[in-house]
Amino acid sequence: MSKPSLPRGTRDFGPEQMVKRTFILTTIRSTFQRFGFQPLETPTLENLSVLMGKYGDEGDQLLFKVLNSGDFAGKLTPEDWTADSKQITTKIAEKGLRYDLTVPFARYVVMNRGTLPFPFKRFQIQPVWRADRPQKGRYREFYQCDADVVGTDSLLCEAEIVLMLHESLRALGIADFTVKINNRKILTGIAETIGAAGMEGPLCVAIDKLDKIGKEKVIQELHERGFTPENTQKLDPIFNLSTEEQPFDLLRNWLADSEIGRKGLDELEEIWTLVEGFGLNSPQMQFDVTLARGLSYYTGAIFEVKANGVQIGSISGGGRYDNLTGTFGVPGLSGVGISLGVDRIYDVMEELNLFPENQSITTHLMLTNFDREAELYGLKIVKAAREAGLNTEMYPDAVKLKKQLDYADRKQIPFVLLIGSSEIETGLLTLKNMKTGEQTKASVNEILKLVKAYLEPQINI
Amino acid sequence: MSKPSLPRGTRDFGPEQMVKRTFILTTIRSTFQRFGFQPLETPTLENLSVLMGKYGDEGDQLLFKVLNSGDFAGKLTPEDWTADSKQITTKIAEKGLRYDLTVPFARYVVMNRGTLPFPFKRFQIQPVWRADRPQKGRYREFYQCDADVVGTDSLLCEAEIVLMLHESLRALGIADFTVKINNRKILTGIAETIGAAGMEGPLCVAIDKLDKIGKEKVIQELHERGFTPENTQKLDPIFNLSTEEQPFDLLRNWLADSEIGRKGLDELEEIWTLVEGFGLNSPQMQFDVTLARGLSYYTGAIFEVKANGVQIGSISGGGRYDNLTGTFGVPGLSGVGISLGVDRIYDVMEELNLFPENQSITTHLMLTNFDREAELYGLKIVKAAREAGLNTEMYPDAVKLKKQLDYADRKQIPFVLLIGSSEIETGLLTLKNMKTGEQTKASVNEILKLVKAYLEPQINI
Repeated sequence: MSKPSLPRGTRDFGPEQMVKRTFILTTIRSTFQRFGFQPLETPTLENLSVLMGKYGDEGDQLLFKVLNSGDFAGKLTPEDWTADSKQITTKIAEKGLRYDLTVPFARYVVMNRGTLPFPFKRFQIQPVWRADRPQKGRYREFYQCDADVVGTDSLLCEAEIVLMLHESLRALGIADFTVKINNRKILTGIAETIGAAGMEGPLCVAIDKLDKIGKEKVIQELHERGFTPENTQKLDPIFNLSTEEQPFDLLRNWLADSEIGRKGLDELEEIWTLVEGFGLNSPQMQFDVTLARGLSYYTGAIFEVKANGVQIGSISGGGRYDNLTGTFGVPGLSGVGISLGVDRIYDVMEELNLFPENQSITTHLMLTNFDREAELYGLKIVKAAREAGLNTEMYPDAVKLKKQLDYADRKQIPFVLLIGSSEIETGLLTLKNMKTGEQTKASVNEILKLVKAYLEPQINI
Repeated sequence: MSKPSLPRGTRDFGPEQMVKRTFILTTIRSTFQRFGFQPLETPTLENLSVLMGKYGDEGDQLLFKVLNSGDFAGKLTPEDWTADSKQITTKIAEKGLRYDLTVPFARYVVMNRGTLPFPFKRFQIQPVWRADRPQKGRYREFYQCDADVVGTDSLLCEAEIVLMLHESLRALGIADFTVKINNRKILTGIAETIGAAGMEGPLCVAIDKLDKIGKEKVIQELHERGFTPENTQKLDPIFNLSTEEQPFDLLRNWLADSEIGRKGLDELEEIWTLVEGFGLNSPQMQFDVTLARGLSYYTGAIFEVKANGVQIGSISGGGRYDNLTGTFGVPGLSGVGISLGVDRIYDVMEELNLFPENQSITTHLMLTNFDREAELYGLKIVKAAREAGLNTEMYPDAVKLKKQLDYADRKQIPFVLLIGSSEIETGLLTLKNMKTGEQTKASVNEILKLVKAYLEPQINI
């Protein structure tokens, strides 16, 4: 007999959280589908041969590995035992848990490329696992919502992603957000232009901190990272960009001599043109030349979404990658995608109080249970209420009324139908509004109409 | 570079399967909610201290165990190395994958019993993992859909389960099924009555085979299992039961001297009475005195559902258990529940061709992409179509029309909107019905109306 507990970094989602999470996931799912993305689910268990080497050394360590079944130890030699954990792992674990949705997607595309319609647009909403140190807002098991298009380099896909981000967030009620956009090619062009070609990686890491540490310290850090004073001097225009709204013109001049930089700016402007072409109402897009998001991965557009007015990191990120499936032997498939962070979105919505009212209601109507006669009388009413679309239950035991009403309260059931001998005699039942305490006497049909009318504006029955 | 593969016994669910699976899960979920069950999700990762010892020795072996992070091997002594796999496992793996939804539910109830409304009605739809030998229809990663009530022994819960099974299966379109019901107490009573008290376990294993191997061989097996000829002679009434519709009367006489047997019959009859009280249309219930389902677990009602007309095992099973949380130190909580097998239900529906038509349609309308002008012209139409509730996409590249139509075909998109220079000039667009090949010229608004009118009877837009 043990006192049970949860593994660190994992969570139960009870009814109240589930209803809110379902609201988020359903909204995102239906938006993705409205944009022509099709659903995909891949298994939790993947072969480690598929996962290892895809997320860098740190990623390999953060993968949860599953012990082989059966007598795994019997197959090991004494030398194996004295090796280090990493080496033994490969001998006793062949499978691991999904670390993100991108690598399984790439595997799926490669394994099914003969039958998939290309460009292939898929969305995927599933949990992922990382053996990270758990901390506030960071879990070892958490959900990702990804949408990707693979098999085309059309910038229409980027514009669609911008639109889709606007529509999903607005549908969730998150009105104040910023979709930050950059392009890897612009970063490459800047590195070229300042005479530090190929060094866009460390450049971005430092520039990313501009808001926090200021120009002087960024320059200091760049010098520490191997940039020369000549490089950083040429970087001056970037420090004037942050105050500009959409600094296309400034960058056009600055990067005039870099072909790849100009290409990046062309791509970026085309996204703006297409979004405008859609007629999107009040676009909340911002060109952020310091946006990099890991960088090594992306080859074109880079996206990040921040909810304004809350101290919570980015709620979405993504971009274009030109070689998604190359690691599985199928080169040349360009893709672009976006990932929404359900946990962060949940936190934003909680903090801003954005969940629709009554979201935590799961049962609409409860019938009390006075005695055997009332129980049998009530059963057909339960059935009729359900047929009318109401989530309905009868309290299962004929215990004290107070206990039954207390149950309805704790479950946030808005209406209780009281049935006793006088109600059975007259056919007029007593409906109690649990919020106001108000009681109404009426026939079954009238009561069902009343409850529906009350709930319909708030709940989609 | 490796050729990627899936672990044995796992599956990808591509768009077509996903849409069908979503139909099943959504139908079951909304039925469960209509009956007042609330959603719960528990983590995939559970501590092995929670999971081990709950599923018997075989179950312990079938648990997927997750290797501890970090330098797990460094903490082992040379003695550990020479131990067998089982002993080493406990030292290098603290976590495992969820094996079913019942034990995590029990853990959740124990950990949250101070705040939950009792009786607590929860449903849970999540995958589970078993390191079983994969074979046709048996996977290592598969979904379960469970609904349980815990904290009451009211037989109303059993009747609700019978009703809920009828409503979910009928909502799925599975019309011909049988809900088989038995009661553990009746089996105990039979063992008592034939002078073999406590031997209901082996009794059921043998009797369960009656249909397959016949009376003589069942008796032979019972003798092998330690029953005396006197026991089996007294068992005679059971062989006459199988032809009876609802053999309550026969059993009443036979088990008259067994208190527990009579109790079991009372409980069973009460379920029938309550189901009748609900006014369920044409109940498809059958009392099956040979139904046992593992037995050790259940203490009252036992349920099993078989879809008729297909060679597929049971699609649902469940029953009452009086000590769900006892193993975690909280005795006395009685519960009753049901589990629906999504994979089996999927197979039944495929075999009987029960999935609604057009279930695999995910995009309703595609706009072709002729050239830059048509692309920009089309963007606002895409937006308008989505606002009208249609899942809509524009082909992202201005490639040959044949390729674009081929894409629409492969994705089973029912309507394609063709936009060229003449369409832009006149404002009359060409809508192509991809099934019939028929083309219609009309304005945007008319076209959106046409597509909606065509789809609405079949698809809930």
